[in-house]
Amino acid sequence: MAKDFQADHLGRMNLADRRTVLRGAAAGAALFAPGAALAESGDLAAIRKAVAAGHDQAVQRLQDWIRLPSIAAENRDMEKGCAHMMALARDAGFQHVERVPTSGHPGVFATLDAGAKKWMGIYFMYDVKQYDPAEWSVPPVEARLIDKAGFGKVIMGRGAVNQKGPEATFLAALHALRAAGRKLPVNLVLVAEGEEEIGSPHFSEIVHRPDVLAAMKKCVGVIIPTGWQSPSTGGVAVNLGAKGVIEFELIASGEKWGRGPARDIHSSEKARVDSPAWRLVAALSTLVTPDGNMPVVDGYMDNVRPLTAREKALIAEAGRTMSEADAKRALGVERWIGDLPWQQALERLAAVPTINIEGLVSGYTGPGGKTVLPGRAVAKIDCRIVPNQTKDEAVAKIRAHLDKHGFQDVEMAVSGGYDPTETAEDSKLVKAELAVYARNKVPTTVYPRLAGSWPGVVFTGQPVGLPAGQFGLGHGSGAHAPDEYFVIESTNPKIAGMDDAAMGFVDFLYEIAAVG
Amino acid sequence: MAKDFQADHLGRMNLADRRTVLRGAAAGAALFAPGAALAESGDLAAIRKAVAAGHDQAVQRLQDWIRLPSIAAENRDMEKGCAHMMALARDAGFQHVERVPTSGHPGVFATLDAGAKKWMGIYFMYDVKQYDPAEWSVPPVEARLIDKAGFGKVIMGRGAVNQKGPEATFLAALHALRAAGRKLPVNLVLVAEGEEEIGSPHFSEIVHRPDVLAAMKKCVGVIIPTGWQSPSTGGVAVNLGAKGVIEFELIASGEKWGRGPARDIHSSEKARVDSPAWRLVAALSTLVTPDGNMPVVDGYMDNVRPLTAREKALIAEAGRTMSEADAKRALGVERWIGDLPWQQALERLAAVPTINIEGLVSGYTGPGGKTVLPGRAVAKIDCRIVPNQTKDEAVAKIRAHLDKHGFQDVEMAVSGGYDPTETAEDSKLVKAELAVYARNKVPTTVYPRLAGSWPGVVFTGQPVGLPAGQFGLGHGSGAHAPDEYFVIESTNPKIAGMDDAAMGFVDFLYEIAAVG
Repeated sequence: MAKDFQADHLGRMNLADRRTVLRGAAAGAALFAPGAALAESGDLAAIRKAVAAGHDQAVQRLQDWIRLPSIAAENRDMEKGCAHMMALARDAGFQHVERVPTSGHPGVFATLDAGAKKWMGIYFMYDVKQYDPAEWSVPPVEARLIDKAGFGKVIMGRGAVNQKGPEATFLAALHALRAAGRKLPVNLVLVAEGEEEIGSPHFSEIVHRPDVLAAMKKCVGVIIPTGWQSPSTGGVAVNLGAKGVIEFELIASGEKWGRGPARDIHSSEKARVDSPAWRLVAALSTLVTPDGNMPVVDGYMDNVRPLTAREKALIAEAGRTMSEADAKRALGVERWIGDLPWQQALERLAAVPTINIEGLVSGYTGPGGKTVLPGRAVAKIDCRIVPNQTKDEAVAKIRAHLDKHGFQDVEMAVSGGYDPTETAEDSKLVKAELAVYARNKVPTTVYPRLAGSWPGVVFTGQPVGLPAGQFGLGHGSGAHAPDEYFVIESTNPKIAGMDDAAMGFVDFLYEIAAVG
Repeated sequence: MAKDFQADHLGRMNLADRRTVLRGAAAGAALFAPGAALAESGDLAAIRKAVAAGHDQAVQRLQDWIRLPSIAAENRDMEKGCAHMMALARDAGFQHVERVPTSGHPGVFATLDAGAKKWMGIYFMYDVKQYDPAEWSVPPVEARLIDKAGFGKVIMGRGAVNQKGPEATFLAALHALRAAGRKLPVNLVLVAEGEEEIGSPHFSEIVHRPDVLAAMKKCVGVIIPTGWQSPSTGGVAVNLGAKGVIEFELIASGEKWGRGPARDIHSSEKARVDSPAWRLVAALSTLVTPDGNMPVVDGYMDNVRPLTAREKALIAEAGRTMSEADAKRALGVERWIGDLPWQQALERLAAVPTINIEGLVSGYTGPGGKTVLPGRAVAKIDCRIVPNQTKDEAVAKIRAHLDKHGFQDVEMAVSGGYDPTETAEDSKLVKAELAVYARNKVPTTVYPRLAGSWPGVVFTGQPVGLPAGQFGLGHGSGAHAPDEYFVIESTNPKIAGMDDAAMGFVDFLYEIAAVG
């Protein structure tokens, strides 16, 4: 489900591109300016030298990793991928590295105790999205180093930006610190999963294991390493939260209904046989207003917390720096819901729960027609929920609503989802992120709540209860798409290459040590 | 669209199986008992001998034909198929044989003037349905002769029963008459098309050509040769009409609507972007009652003619001889609409116009979910219409209804259809059919109106205005399915083999000469 999260950052839906607020000084060419904590540590020159010295090895490490694609949806090389993840952690200096079995594919729990005062949580995914080699201009898991016009030297391959590139960059930072003979300024807890691309269905089993939980609870916060600088501005978004999401299918079938056919039959029978497809249409039309834009599920909005004044102010600030016309063009949209003006459209995006039809499937779906009365009709639905709604509450209310309206037979098959996530703007994690970005002249947008979703609630929710977000310099794109890439050597002065991005992680760890 | 028609007769939806009324004497073993007209002609023994003598050649003729599959949907061998159809007509004794170009694929017009008083129209299709060899137990166009348990020797191959087998059997009758030195008792007008399997979109161009029309208008009626005897009873249905059909897509799209996205975008955008999928759901729900069972399109029912007392009586007669439980089992249905009793369910099947959803397609349709807000949503619809509705009327009323309810943007893309067809029970054609069936102890069901559809209105409607239907002994099955077959030598005493079926056509032509 974290695909939802990335979708907001990458490609067409890149938030950083659209919502950039210049917060630092004027964006300049020389990336990576270390903070006081690092500059004053006396470690800087040595670490920078070690990063440069380790560059080829870091690139090789990333290439080797891309060449082992673990794909949970295909049950492909999951154990190998887990073992490789463990080896990567060990090599980077984690003293305790442990395979954590789950009801699904295994994860990894690792700790690096540098004897520092503070602990920081790091979240990795070792799996990648499926891919179709036919759609790629290069073989997808050869991890070729190629020149990309306007970007520089990039590694192209599945997982390059989502998420192995940024993760390998973080590991490069750890290697450099060790090679420079420096102890880490903070201790680390690493939790890694292999099911991110199928919605992290068992990730909480890893994080909630008592010893893992105990380690997590010592942390200042949790980040997933990212490389999402906008190539046009160098900017990134700092998101204080994200909507929760629920995915389910609503299924009307003759089998469950006791009316209509058990399978597709000849359409002439419609004159005497009920239709599950019409049943589905009737059930669907009870869920939302006739315009499709507001849930009318009984009690659904009871726990919706309106935007705070601060959240509205942040949205307004973001909105002033974005182009509404660009946003509409990027989405292929001429009008917002209800012809709302820009600011209200942005508020609605952050504030309003949705019930969306992501797919409809029934009967004959090929070209032309085929005269069948389908025995089954399916609507694929995703709901975005906001604080203080919960997944369990929303599922229960939709089920009760369908039952009350006489659709007890319409199945609701929930495949995944999680609650909204929130991290306080004044948390040490967010402050550290903003400080490092600002020093490095990376324009940032502080955004109160992503309309998309990521399972940050595993960290921000109980029992862990930590600030959690994304952090990283660097750039890549093409997550879930062909020709995914990650910039190794940047020719674009706005974005960091792998070495500068590694120094960004070093700086971030020193910053956490200082403010955490 | 004639697939709709066959679907009612073949396989799971075999009407003859379900609605058989024993009209002749008790069904007996010895098939083919010639009528007085033929018996008294003195031609019988010679013709029977000629059919037997021509058997191998007739089988070879059918095999050769199956080995040349013409498939309009794939634009496969259409000119070759047309030329082959012309050669078949010439060989069978038609003196005038002409290729008739249309806006689509060509048809054939042929006449056989035997100097008889009466003319009979014959409708052939030379195309066949697509096929997937992987699904077949034999190569689909090798036309192998194989032994099929419970049936005897059959030819298995695409087109075997739909429609080349019965058509080749009709041609075998003509060859036998000539070989026996007998003139045909009636003259023939043959009209053949190559687009039956794509809904006969240009067939009326052939039939309405002035010289073809003039020839047709001399005819007593029109038949398509069939081989649809039930293997359990030997019975066939004599249908006095069929509902018309309209197939169209209703398409909601951001592009036409001016709201919602032009293409699939990330589903988180639902909070500020309208949804064409919800738009489609809203438009659909205006078309029918909430239970999906009755059109509520403005003015839609104005021209619906209720069943006559005679039609109700025929349905009641058919209903008494059928098993409701068997019908439900065959369809996988537990209850009829509104829990109607059997007789009313049968009346509804014949009498009520339908608006059926044959398919729903929007957004992500694969396994699991994908968080998109689709830019387009499509409902594939088929409507069955009854006398005195017309296709043009129904299309116009649905369009006007959508417009009136504010759905001007929802496209209605009509792909095909035609008006209902009706042939009078007391027409000479129906009388001749019933007489031949009765003589041959073939149980018949006279049914007022098929709930399915076939383009009989091309013949029964203006300007042709003839009785039109199906006629034939013999048996085959698997139209549009793998392992399609046609019985050549029957070991089932209820069904005729190819020779007896050919004699059935001979008898039918003599009967038409006598009563026509």
